[in-house]
Formats: sequence, structure tokens, C-alpha cells
Amino acid sequence: MSAIDSTPSNNGQARESWSKSWTHLKVDRRSRGYCRVTFDHPPINTITATTVAELAEVVGLIEQDPELNVVVFDSANPDFYLAHYDTEHDPARTAALGVGPTGMHAWLDLLVRLARAPVVSIASIRGRARGAGSEFILACDLRFASRESTLLGQFEVAAGVVPGGGPMARLARLVGRGRALEILLVADDLDGPRAEQYGYVNRAIADDRLDDEVHETASRLARFDHEALARTKPYVDQVTLPADSELPPALADFFELSGRPALQARFARLEELGLNADSDLERALGRRVVDALPDG
Amino acid sequence: MSAIDSTPSNNGQARESWSKSWTHLKVDRRSRGYCRVTFDHPPINTITATTVAELAEVVGLIEQDPELNVVVFDSANPDFYLAHYDTEHDPARTAALGVGPTGMHAWLDLLVRLARAPVVSIASIRGRARGAGSEFILACDLRFASRESTLLGQFEVAAGVVPGGGPMARLARLVGRGRALEILLVADDLDGPRAEQYGYVNRAIADDRLDDEVHETASRLARFDHEALARTKPYVDQVTLPADSELPPALADFFELSGRPALQARFARLEELGLNADSDLERALGRRVVDALPDG
Amino acid sequence: MSAIDSTPSNNGQARESWSKSWTHLKVDRRSRGYCRVTFDHPPINTITATTVAELAEVVGLIEQDPELNVVVFDSANPDFYLAHYDTEHDPARTAALGVGPTGMHAWLDLLVRLARAPVVSIASIRGRARGAGSEFILACDLRFASRESTLLGQFEVAAGVVPGGGPMARLARLVGRGRALEILLVADDLDGPRAEQYGYVNRAIADDRLDDEVHETASRLARFDHEALARTKPYVDQVTLPADSELPPALADFFELSGRPALQARFARLEELGLNADSDLERALGRRVVDALPDG
Repeated sequence: MSAIDSTPSNNGQARESWSKSWTHLKVDRRSRGYCRVTFDHPPINTITATTVAELAEVVGLIEQDPELNVVVFDSANPDFYLAHYDTEHDPARTAALGVGPTGMHAWLDLLVRLARAPVVSIASIRGRARGAGSEFILACDLRFASRESTLLGQFEVAAGVVPGGGPMARLARLVGRGRALEILLVADDLDGPRAEQYGYVNRAIADDRLDDEVHETASRLARFDHEALARTKPYVDQVTLPADSELPPALADFFELSGRPALQARFARLEELGLNADSDLERALGRRVVDALPDG
Repeated sequence: MSAIDSTPSNNGQARESWSKSWTHLKVDRRSRGYCRVTFDHPPINTITATTVAELAEVVGLIEQDPELNVVVFDSANPDFYLAHYDTEHDPARTAALGVGPTGMHAWLDLLVRLARAPVVSIASIRGRARGAGSEFILACDLRFASRESTLLGQFEVAAGVVPGGGPMARLARLVGRGRALEILLVADDLDGPRAEQYGYVNRAIADDRLDDEVHETASRLARFDHEALARTKPYVDQVTLPADSELPPALADFFELSGRPALQARFARLEELGLNADSDLERALGRRVVDALPDG
Repeated sequence: MSAIDSTPSNNGQARESWSKSWTHLKVDRRSRGYCRVTFDHPPINTITATTVAELAEVVGLIEQDPELNVVVFDSANPDFYLAHYDTEHDPARTAALGVGPTGMHAWLDLLVRLARAPVVSIASIRGRARGAGSEFILACDLRFASRESTLLGQFEVAAGVVPGGGPMARLARLVGRGRALEILLVADDLDGPRAEQYGYVNRAIADDRLDDEVHETASRLARFDHEALARTKPYVDQVTLPADSELPPALADFFELSGRPALQARFARLEELGLNADSDLERALGRRVVDALPDG
């Protein structure tokens, strides 16, 4: 970070940018060192092209904010943290996202940059996070989950596609081969205690303690010497982050398999059953995604 | 997979091969997507040259079966899943196994090919799995163990040899350095809850629920789109599987150390104490293998 | 190991060297295969230049002792295993330690050599181990911790420096990215059950069972065939140990950040609050290290 970046005037500019009007997010730049981003996209916090564009903007602000130590990502909806991706029947909007500064697709790009950013990113998870929602929390540095109200999963293989946003690369390193293969191939939901046991999250925390504990941790981190934190994290990154080149092939597989007519019919069937709505299907998606499969 | 491989006629051939008569196995090709292999080699399911040859044949069938999604390996003996290797006092039979398609010794070859096969292999574990038995489950994709009736271990170092079938390479990646060194060097048995805690198995499941839960998981997997599953698994493989070149040196060490006269005397002593029989020694082998050591 | 190394006369020499007079250690060379080293540096077992020099000597003896199978490291102080590093207001004493046989700084050198030594090193942990104390246990092969009386942590980032003795490289591989980042960046203490859950230690053991269980494990290991043990461990090393080149840069960062005037003032403030003494601050250092930070 150059001396110019840390002049007060530049810092003033950086803070101003956080206060724009956001569509799917609420952003609270609480203090010099601490920012909170709250997902708020009713009814179930699906991730759309708009969400991706806004998250990419957030990551850019994080990278340019020389005093920021910690960003907490939580949800305004206690039942859904981030449901999963929704193309809104208009793949062109997703395609229009283009590539980011790393040269990768906007979604991969923002996840990779978030993981390398010189701050501590914390996913404070209450409710469901599946598919791209799970991919997002896996790109955060720390994951704390409501013990009673969490469901995590990568349901893609059960639907007939390859997960595209890096969970093979990240889960394989985080929870080991056996549990990563179970999460990805059995493709069912994990609740909070199971997610903690498997190491999918750092810890499950009693729901009525989650917000306070995450806030205490973030408040502590906000006071730290930025330089010590920013110089320590890359040593962990170099051991634990996938190479960039690992990620794009699976996303290409995702697009290829999604484009098959049988898959488009299957997703249409899932939508009839309640996909993308606050439905019984969405509440139990990991278990019920197979309802759209042939009898086998 | 070529178009020819997935023609019905070829598929018909593949299914027929499963139904041959097996010596140490029972094979139930339950449905298009699901196969169950049951170890049945009284009295304690030792692994011999015959078992290795049959397992190699099973792996070949798995590789050629374009619609198979899941293979469950369980045991007909509730006390012994796979005891360990037994040369039957005739090392020539083991030597005669030769090398497999990977160029490695038949045992390493079949484990490596099973781990890379485009299906989900599940070890449904009840009873004891030690030495080569543990090496087999470590090469499976998922491991579910009876909470009450499981004992796992690599007893080799306590007997005076290097484990030869890859457990250093696999455990080091699965459970981390500290726990891998404990399992391999202290070389004692782990029960179901400890195996779950260490990540040696995915989960310990109450004994009276184990069969049902594994069957439900396998039935779910059997319905999945084979292509999605077969394209997702290699992304985990590339992060979590050892390079082939890692494996043969430890097997060479195993053969070298086993060949020392003191070791042959030690194994003779263990056999007097009950090795390879349904004995008190075999039931507590991890603890009691040291009974054959000098007093130290 | 050469034939000469294992002649009885050379072995006699090796044993004699263990029995010198030690300043911060008690050394009990219990049997041919088993040695116990007890940290005893009142009041709180800080690590100083003297401790490092003596530990380097111990590692040299371990390397030259052809019959040794296991070394247990425990503490004479039930409240402090190894508090952390203390320069004793004289950085020149630390600088004078120079480099070891690996070409690295004496502290990194002894940790790297201990991890590669052909014995099983066991940290039997009761009390606090933070900073360099945590770095020491992370370089041991096995870690067993008192369930009731353990506090582990890397408090450095909370104090404003980069941890210098390898914990990023070791924790990242041991507990995975999320939990490693939490331990290193949140920089708070973990108690025994949490350390076990995260995999920071192999297991937490009831305090009144810890000594007996570790002794039983060490006595078992002492009887093993040295060759089998010494040939098995390197296969785990090659998968789980960091490359030597990973370690020095973080130590350079530690020295650079420690040298900043603001940091020297901060450590002076911590010393006023009780650092390096048997104080309330030391007993809760992970939580209270932030007392020396600006309000933020």
C-alpha cells in the first residue's frame, strides 16, 4: 500500500463510496476499521447479476480502503442467507457481467479478490446458503453459523450440473477429501452442527449469541494494527488458496452442462415446484432437489 | 466416455460380468446406477492374493460401467470389515499378482484406480479394518462407520514394518499431520467416535441406522446425472489425491522390512497368539500387537 | 543412519550428553527408547535466548541418538507450558543465537529439525502456550492437551506483529484455512476443547489422565522397532511439512514490525500491565493483549 493511499483525503474518498445506494445490499461502514454488509434481496436472497455486480463493487471498495480491517457479511432474512444463483430467465444479464481484473468471470473474480483482500472477511450465517451462496461463504476468511438455523449445501450435482464457483477447490482444502466429496457429490444440506463438525464453518454458535459474538470479534479486529494483519494473512493464503488456474474449467463445465435441454427442462420443473420463491422446496432444497429427477 | 461405451448392448455386457461367481465377495448389481459389494471371507475377512485379484476385477468392472454412479462396500461379518493382509505363508501368491494398468503393484493399482473411478465409492464399515483393510477404506471416496462397532488402525509400525498401501499419503491429506502421525506411529486402534473426530471417517452412525442411511445415500446417488457426478469428482481428485509416484517407495520399504528374519519370527509369534484367526488377539490387535515385541 | 552411529560405544556417548546440567530444562533419559524433557523456567516458562540454545542442543542430541523413539515435552509449571518469547530487554542475546545447520535462524532451525527428527516428539500440554510457545508445540509431532487447563494462542497480530516462528505455515496445513485464519488473525486464546475441535491438538484429555495416557503412549512407542518408525515418518513429512523456504520471510516481518517505535512502546505498556510475570495479564493474555492498543 503506497503512502498516497493512506492520506486522510484519499481515505475520505474511500469512505464516501461506501455510502452509495445499493439494490441488494445494506452497507454500514461502522468505523475506521469495521464494515458490515447485509444481504437484503427479498424474498430469499437469491444471487442475480445485480448482486454479483454490487458485490464486485464492494470488493473494489475493500481493496481501496487502507484502514479497513474487517468486513462482516450477514443477512436481513433469518431464513435465507444467500439462496443460490438465479439467472432470472435471462442468461444474457449474467453473460454481460464479463470478466473482472483477474481476467476471470465476474463471479470467480470477486471471490478470488475477496479471499486475497488485506482484511478479515467474516460470513455470519443464519438461514440457508446453497450453490453460489455456499461458494460465497467459502471465499470468506471466517465462517460462523447459527447452530439452530443454518443449512449449507452444494446442490448442483443433484440437479445435474458441475458446481462452478470454486467449491471443489475450496472444500477439498478445507474439510479434506472424504467430507468434500460427500458435500459435493451427495449434494444434500448440512445443518449447523454438522457443518461445524466437518469444518465447513469455523464454529456453530447458539443463534441468540451469534450476532453478539461476531460483533465482539469484529470490534476486536477493528482495533488491530492493519499492517500486522495485512502481512500475516498472505502467508496463510499461499498455503490454502487454490491457484487461479484451477477455477475457470469447472465454471465452463457448469455452463456446458446447464445448457443441455434436459437440464433446462429440469430447472423449469424445479421452478414449478417452488425454486426461487419462499417455498417448501427452497426450505428443503438439498433433500428435495431430486424431486425433479427421473425415477432412476 | 465414448458414444460406443454407452450403447445399451455394451452396457448389457458390462452388467453380465458382475454376475460371475466370486470367492471372497458377494456382488449385488442392484440397479442401473447402484452396486453393492460385500466382503465375505470367513473367518475374519483377511485380504489375500485372491481378494486382491477379485477387487482388481471389480474395479475394472466399475471403470467399464457407463451408468454406474455408486458402489457400496460392506461386510458379511459384523465383527470384521477387512482384518488385514494375509500372505497365507506363500509370498509367491502375492508376488504373482504382478502389476496393474497403472504400472504399480496390483494392490496399489486397484486402490489408485478405485479412487479415480467416475463413481462414488462408499465404505460402510462395521467391525475391524486394519492394515490393508484400513488402506482399502482410505481409497474409498466416503467412509461411514458404525458408532458402536468399529475399530480402525494401521498396526504395521507397531509390528515393525512400514505401511505399504498408501496410508501415509492418504491420512496425511485427510486428517492432518498430527493425527496422521498418531494413527501411523502410535499404531493403535481408533473406535468409531474417535475415527469421526479425527476425520478418518466421514461420520460415525448409530449401528442400527448405518445400513439404512448408507442405502438411502446410495439410492439418492443412483438417480443422479452420471455426467455431472463424473465431471465434478476429478476437481476434488486433483487437490486431494497423492501423485502415483508417492506410493511405490513405501511398499518397497514394507517388503524390505518384512523380509528381515526378526520380523518373520515376530509374525510367527503373532500367529501363535491368534493372528489370522477369530481370536482375542485379532479382536484387540491394535493394543495387543506389542505382545510380540521384545520387552524394550 | 550409518553403522558407526549405532555402535554401542557411540550410543554410550550420546546418553552421557543428555545428563549435562540444564538451565531451563529438566531432562530424564528414561530408557533406551524414551526421553522426557520438562520445561522449568520460573515464573512462567518464558522462552529466552537461553531456552532456545538449550532446545537446539536437545534437538542435536535427539538427532544423534540412534535408539531413541520418543521424546515427551512437558512443563514443571501447571499454569504455564511455555508462555511466549522474552527478549529480556536485550535483543543482542537473541541476535547472538545466529543460524543453525539448516542455515535458518536458531529458532526456526530447531523447530524444523525437531519436526524431521526420526523420533516421535510429543507435546504434553498443561497450562498456557502462546506465541513462540505455540510455535514449539506446532513443531512437535503429537499434541495432547489437558482438557481443563490449556490455553493456546498466537497473540502476535493483536500485539501488532507478524508471528515469526512458522505458525502460518503449520496451522494452515493442520486445521485448514478458516480456523488457521481465526487463530492467527483474531489472535485470541483457545481452550482445550476448542483446540481439540479445531485440530490444533490431537486430543484434549482429562487433566487427571493426561500424564498417565501420555506416559502409556510413550512407553509403547519406546518398544517399537526404530527402523520402522524412522522410515514411516518421512512419508508423512513430505506431504505435511512446509518447505524450508516458506519460513524465513515471516520471521523477517516479525523483526521489522517489532522494531517500529510504536511497537516498542506497546510492549513496554504490556510489561507494565504484567507481561513476562505471573500476572492476571499473562493468565488471560489472548483476551487482554488489546488493553495495550489505542482505542481504535
